[in-house]
Amino acid sequence: MTGFHTRFGKLPAFYVGTVFQEIDADSLHVGGEPTAAAVRIMADHMAVHTEDAETRKRSREILARILAPHTTDRGLYCEFHIDETPRELWMLDGLAPPPLTSEAHRLWGRENRPVPY
Amino acid sequence: MTGFHTRFGKLPAFYVGTVFQEIDADSLHVGGEPTAAAVRIMADHMAVHTEDAETRKRSREILARILAPHTTDRGLYCEFHIDETPRELWMLDGLAPPPLTSEAHRLWGRENRPVPY
Amino acid sequence: MTGFHTRFGKLPAFYVGTVFQEIDADSLHVGGEPTAAAVRIMADHMAVHTEDAETRKRSREILARILAPHTTDRGLYCEFHIDETPRELWMLDGLAPPPLTSEAHRLWGRENRPVPY
Repeated sequence: MTGFHTRFGKLPAFYVGTVFQEIDADSLHVGGEPTAAAVRIMADHMAVHTEDAETRKRSREILARILAPHTTDRGLYCEFHIDETPRELWMLDGLAPPPLTSEAHRLWGRENRPVPY
Repeated sequence: MTGFHTRFGKLPAFYVGTVFQEIDADSLHVGGEPTAAAVRIMADHMAVHTEDAETRKRSREILARILAPHTTDRGLYCEFHIDETPRELWMLDGLAPPPLTSEAHRLWGRENRPVPY
Repeated sequence: MTGFHTRFGKLPAFYVGTVFQEIDADSLHVGGEPTAAAVRIMADHMAVHTEDAETRKRSREILARILAPHTTDRGLYCEFHIDETPRELWMLDGLAPPPLTSEAHRLWGRENRPVPY
């Protein structure tokens, strides 16, 4: 995931945060039934938002292909959904993310950390 | 919850995913104070979105009635909120959800699993 | 946080709910790498929504200042983002939140609990 966002999204690697949580076999239900062999991914996108339905559909196809070797190809049921939340309500280490086209944005990418600008 | 979504929403049962998480008595705070006897529910709706405030209000009333026997009626403080996230950024087992009015949608409901279409 | 919302937002203290979750040192990744000394905050705002980008930016600055003594000032990497979700899909103890300008809203604040109205 991080590789995709840095290569194609031109985003700093540290923009990708992930929390892995193991869920007890009886605590993840799908359709009202406990489902042990499943992965459920919830993602929020703050840095870049999609502008139309076609872009969203392409994004989910790409994500599904990245996830497949780790999930569906191994027999795990995998469901994901992504939300898009306001960029102006996002902050990293006390700093606001610089505009995507700014020199500061490129600096954050090179340094791979938030740098005052 | 699953029953409501299948009967009234005409959605496949497996569209309803739930993660139950037990929280330590001192780790759920309400108003800055630890709150042991409480349930906090966060839901994201991807499949169907409400179109107006009145529909949203009806939805929350129905959810509150379904939850009551398990929460408020048993003396548990219960708070919930629902978000609506883009349908086009949602995927199940490597497959995009079929349109709600399609034959594939009905097939997914009958089979209760994502089927290539 | 609760103090800020009650003093400046004129919101009942119990409108602020918080779940603290300790994450294993190898389960929180930033940029694809495990990150032990980090705090990641996700918040949903239901009661009041911002109306423009400038208000959002001021909100995140205030939140960053409140968090600093507990996070960045102590050498913890801290990232947060806030989403805004539909007020009409939010419910507390079986009751819909009263309008912000109503007497019932002030009553909820004084009683610091949901009261039938």
